[in-house]
Amino acid sequence: MDRIPILKMGPVLLVSIQVDMHDQLALTLQDDLTDRIVTTRARGVLIDISSLEVVDSFIGRMLGNIAAMSKVLDAETVVVGMRPAVAITLVELGMSLTGVRTALNVERAMEILGAATGNGGTPPGEVTDGRHPD
Amino acid sequence: MDRIPILKMGPVLLVSIQVDMHDQLALTLQDDLTDRIVTTRARGVLIDISSLEVVDSFIGRMLGNIAAMSKVLDAETVVVGMRPAVAITLVELGMSLTGVRTALNVERAMEILGAATGNGGTPPGEVTDGRHPD
Repeated sequence: MDRIPILKMGPVLLVSIQVDMHDQLALTLQDDLTDRIVTTRARGVLIDISSLEVVDSFIGRMLGNIAAMSKVLDAETVVVGMRPAVAITLVELGMSLTGVRTALNVERAMEILGAATGNGGTPPGEVTDGRHPD
Repeated sequence: MDRIPILKMGPVLLVSIQVDMHDQLALTLQDDLTDRIVTTRARGVLIDISSLEVVDSFIGRMLGNIAAMSKVLDAETVVVGMRPAVAITLVELGMSLTGVRTALNVERAMEILGAATGNGGTPPGEVTDGRHPD
């Protein structure tokens, strides 16, 4: 496992983190993701951490970094699927995940990113590709 | 890693396989996926194998099983992200992945499943949730 796959879904890039992150993997993910944001003109990054039983300070910092990098590339980051135990640990560790938005599941995250999945989830008057109406 | 996460995106369930499959993990995935198809009334299953460098006969059989199970639950399975080397190996092994549709990437698969991601990918006259127009 040398890199984590990045899936493009409309204007959103989806990353599902399922393996233990180590330094090199995190750096590769940051490189790949920023490249893909630029080449695909993505407006949102969606990171699924539902398989992670533990989010330590390393992962927390990585999520913060990704969010900050995406932000300067004009893409918003939403972390989805956080387990209750992970939320408890994060708060106990004093990690607030600054700049990282969270959502309960992918569909809620897609709504936040203004990119509903074609299931009638788009609010009236909102364009579906997450860009400005004009 | 005891189970592979299943992400619901509208009428489609998305599974990204990133780790080495073993018997128990494959069985758990089949159980989880069939459960989720029924509970979410999903019409499509999308399996991303872009991180797999090798698809052996075990994985091939698992994909075929998942496709067959989804089929009887009225959901179509599309495998995406197959690497060229994997395609070569599959053919050389004589595995035709019967009943499994493939697509180059998630967006093409979403089009096949009639569930475009809100990026204007839905063909005219086709409903976006993959069900019959009437």
